[in-house]
Amino acid sequence: MRIVLVEPQYEINIGFAARCMKNFGFKELYIVNPQSFGDLALKFSSHASDIIKSAILCSSLQEALKGIDLVIGTTSNIGNERNLRRTAIPITELRDLDAKSNAAILFGNERTGLKNEQIDMCDILTYIPTSDEYPSMNLSHAVAVVLYELRRNENLRTISHRIASKEDKEMIMKFVEDLLIMTGLHGIKLKHSKLIFKRLLDRAYLTDREAKALLGTFSRMRKLAKTWST
Amino acid sequence: MRIVLVEPQYEINIGFAARCMKNFGFKELYIVNPQSFGDLALKFSSHASDIIKSAILCSSLQEALKGIDLVIGTTSNIGNERNLRRTAIPITELRDLDAKSNAAILFGNERTGLKNEQIDMCDILTYIPTSDEYPSMNLSHAVAVVLYELRRNENLRTISHRIASKEDKEMIMKFVEDLLIMTGLHGIKLKHSKLIFKRLLDRAYLTDREAKALLGTFSRMRKLAKTWST
Repeated sequence: MRIVLVEPQYEINIGFAARCMKNFGFKELYIVNPQSFGDLALKFSSHASDIIKSAILCSSLQEALKGIDLVIGTTSNIGNERNLRRTAIPITELRDLDAKSNAAILFGNERTGLKNEQIDMCDILTYIPTSDEYPSMNLSHAVAVVLYELRRNENLRTISHRIASKEDKEMIMKFVEDLLIMTGLHGIKLKHSKLIFKRLLDRAYLTDREAKALLGTFSRMRKLAKTWST
Repeated sequence: MRIVLVEPQYEINIGFAARCMKNFGFKELYIVNPQSFGDLALKFSSHASDIIKSAILCSSLQEALKGIDLVIGTTSNIGNERNLRRTAIPITELRDLDAKSNAAILFGNERTGLKNEQIDMCDILTYIPTSDEYPSMNLSHAVAVVLYELRRNENLRTISHRIASKEDKEMIMKFVEDLLIMTGLHGIKLKHSKLIFKRLLDRAYLTDREAKALLGTFSRMRKLAKTWST
């Protein structure tokens, strides 16, 4: 499990986030374009200086997500039901994830949170069930709560399934797109239908086995549709 | 539910703790002999300045616990089984407590935690299940996690998304089944493929709007497949 701080503004939050990571047994910290990163982060990390020292600095989010199968974004702005982009599940519903998962959790900038173009790179969006009166937590405190929740889940779980690979999910999406196009969808309608399908796959936490089965199903559907349409 | 910070050293933690309180809908802050308490606490509380301004300053822990029925102490030092004083339960086992409980939760000083004479005033001791490697959280981050856990099952934030109706999901499944049959699936393979699809829909927490869109998509696919196959 990789923790990614995206464009953090304050070193104090980087330091505290590192401390929280060590408190809950996480090690892999990636930082995308921090405003500053130095002694203050080290100071506030307290006895987690090893995490600060081994943190990977990246100049783009793409770089920080290399090799990751599942990208989880965090947001306090969950929008309404018309906002497909920001359809999110509470962290209490994050399942089948453990420290060994090949997943990344993204935390946005202190003032802006994750921006739309960053959210578009996420497979799942999640939020902390805070009060409507003041939903926005400080960055490192959000990290504390999310990492606690992930560990709490892990203690309760006995079986952990391997999650579907990014490649298999992309292949399923390719089949789905072909099918949608064959039904005559294009433009914004095609885009929306694809987005809904993708969110569905991601929110369901497909296991590796399920992804393989779906691949087979959609492959058959596409093949048949091609036969028919020629 | 009263939150009591006992002899806190840093204003930044007081401010952050107040923000976490507001994030999770707690209002009553008592502070026992802070080392300092002023503008910095106010600054770090961000939009929770009302909690800082209405905080009650006390010169003794006894004073802060007046009128309280249940005193809960927090500690990262849970001792061993011979240390009866520090026998503690994990916060996941704190039950039957809500915001209306006439209870207080105590958080000790950043360096020392709650001292023995303070712990002796507690009815229950609780700890956050952190890593053995680095069990001690920063004060305000411990506040964040404990308050989150207390609120976790109360579902503070009602999701603004209406979930998909059973009828819509059943209709989607009917379309999917038709399509699967048209691709030539039957028997146990058909059953498995249907099951995987159903699990997918359920685990994804489909919204009403997404269900309607999927209905449209699958309906089009089925219609087209029927046209082709005749």
